[in-house]
Amino acid sequence: MSRPLHPKVAETDHDILEVIRHRWSPRAFDAAGDASDAELQRLFEAARWAPSSANEQPWRFVVASARRNPVAFAAMLDALTPKNQAWAKHAAALVLTAVRLTFERNGAPNAMAWYDAGQAVGFLSLQATADGLATRQMRGFDADRARTACAVPPEFEPTVIIAIGRLGDPEALEVELHRSAEMQPRQRRPLREFVFVETWGSAFGATGS
Amino acid sequence: MSRPLHPKVAETDHDILEVIRHRWSPRAFDAAGDASDAELQRLFEAARWAPSSANEQPWRFVVASARRNPVAFAAMLDALTPKNQAWAKHAAALVLTAVRLTFERNGAPNAMAWYDAGQAVGFLSLQATADGLATRQMRGFDADRARTACAVPPEFEPTVIIAIGRLGDPEALEVELHRSAEMQPRQRRPLREFVFVETWGSAFGATGS
Repeated sequence: MSRPLHPKVAETDHDILEVIRHRWSPRAFDAAGDASDAELQRLFEAARWAPSSANEQPWRFVVASARRNPVAFAAMLDALTPKNQAWAKHAAALVLTAVRLTFERNGAPNAMAWYDAGQAVGFLSLQATADGLATRQMRGFDADRARTACAVPPEFEPTVIIAIGRLGDPEALEVELHRSAEMQPRQRRPLREFVFVETWGSAFGATGS
Repeated sequence: MSRPLHPKVAETDHDILEVIRHRWSPRAFDAAGDASDAELQRLFEAARWAPSSANEQPWRFVVASARRNPVAFAAMLDALTPKNQAWAKHAAALVLTAVRLTFERNGAPNAMAWYDAGQAVGFLSLQATADGLATRQMRGFDADRARTACAVPPEFEPTVIIAIGRLGDPEALEVELHRSAEMQPRQRRPLREFVFVETWGSAFGATGS
């Protein structure tokens, strides 16, 4: 594979979907950039078609556009840790993700709720990449404040807040650590460390990493 | 949008990635079909590039090919519920997914482990779709038996077993409910029921579903 032009394009050991190679989680968002409601809806449409246990679709989303919902955006931003606020304030939209912890049909605990939500947000993030939008998911927020800001009912639990927008200039980031992270190649474990054959610890495949 | 030829191609309200429209979770696998190790490795490469909290990459996979690892395949199959065994026995491979519940660097609980694993398997499932492979994720299995079959260490927790293979003939399925489900259109909640603007319950967007 030829050397990618952008340091965040994954250096893969096997050919994979371009949209997966190109997805990454920036902190540098363009403060002048927007994501239209139509663009955002397409992201949720992508999330909609994720699989889920018993087709429960436990995920819910609350959208706050910086331009069209500035008060809600500010309230959601306020729930983030100060470190996340420092860069997320330039996102075009913040999206709270929450999951229903029990099955609607019988109230039984849904052990797959978080897992299923991760899958839905994964689809959302790939759709965003395809559409020229960047996303970064954050766990660094105060769940109680987020719950209050978005009026999340008790049977749901906030999972992540997603920053969505146009990629910005890394040099505009206020925190030096954030600036340098923005240009470092993405790092992952080699396959042999997390894919086993037949039994735990037996690396799958003699080739590749 | 024109009517799709296959009932499982999603009838979307907004244009989304073709690979998301076409992904679905069959039970009808072609007993004569295989998935090569090279094909399987590409799926794990796709999972590898999913985002995760603090880049922990808590996911691990144990692969059992029906042809190349028949004993391990039979052991994993045996951990499934009888209903799942009835169709999953025709898959080309079974893959146990497990997550590390604590962060490697400090042993602290990782609240995002399941969520992150869902995202990684979501990427895997889309890569499979792109490569002409079908996947179905199952929670219906005995976690203790799966742990024993794959020697999963105590600090990891089994999440799903994934059936992977070539799409088969629905009529070959043994269970009538499985046969009929195989040809029914995929159903999802409309966007207005799970995407809100500014606050919970306020449907996002006036158009679309």
